[in-house]
Amino acid sequence: MVNDADMIRLRPIGVVHTATAEMPRHWTQSDVEGILEIDPFYEAGLADIEPGQYIMVLFHFDRSPSFSEAMLTQTQPHGDRPKGVFSICSPRRPNPIGQSVLKVIRRQGRRIWVKGLDMFDGTPIIDIKPYVEVPR
Amino acid sequence: MVNDADMIRLRPIGVVHTATAEMPRHWTQSDVEGILEIDPFYEAGLADIEPGQYIMVLFHFDRSPSFSEAMLTQTQPHGDRPKGVFSICSPRRPNPIGQSVLKVIRRQGRRIWVKGLDMFDGTPIIDIKPYVEVPR
Repeated sequence: MVNDADMIRLRPIGVVHTATAEMPRHWTQSDVEGILEIDPFYEAGLADIEPGQYIMVLFHFDRSPSFSEAMLTQTQPHGDRPKGVFSICSPRRPNPIGQSVLKVIRRQGRRIWVKGLDMFDGTPIIDIKPYVEVPR
Repeated sequence: MVNDADMIRLRPIGVVHTATAEMPRHWTQSDVEGILEIDPFYEAGLADIEPGQYIMVLFHFDRSPSFSEAMLTQTQPHGDRPKGVFSICSPRRPNPIGQSVLKVIRRQGRRIWVKGLDMFDGTPIIDIKPYVEVPR
């Protein structure tokens, strides 16, 4: 194991707001809408995020239990056998970072209206990146 | 800004090995090969990672400078104007987490041979996830 000196510290850049109680199991199966509210300090960094585009959002699974060895393989709710944690999108991961691709509906200042959420209201946002597919 | 109590702490799960001195600017333009060496504790979690598939790898930009306000917009080496940091794949980000899609060549125990690297030798690995595209 790495020692504590190698720990990486992240600071959330914003938070997810959504009114829904629904929790789709994956962003590919979600029509849930909500707002990404980004901290004022980072607003200038949101330039060039435009309606209609997809964005890759990294977020903190802040409601997940601590990871344990028993979670190295997991049978998903829709699965029929245990799979390695690195081959599934489970929120119970060694490092509790989630990643979803969301569609931008509109942006106003430091607020981005999005569709495709699979995060709880109040989820801390860590990063936003361009969505890029493998070239064919 | 959030306070320190909200900081998120991550522990690397492994390290990147590559012999190349080449550094492609993005994984979509890389044929660089190397090995992801995962910590023994996590080996069982690598089950179901198979040759030929693509994996999404999260890693630490451990050689990036601390983020400052001047980096909220950046002109990329191949760009003609400044863009918001959340619309580009720059390694100089508020949270220094990178994300690349790599092709699996083979796996042997806790070592994964991959193609498409845009990371330096010794880069800490944070997570491996399935590569999933937006459904059409």
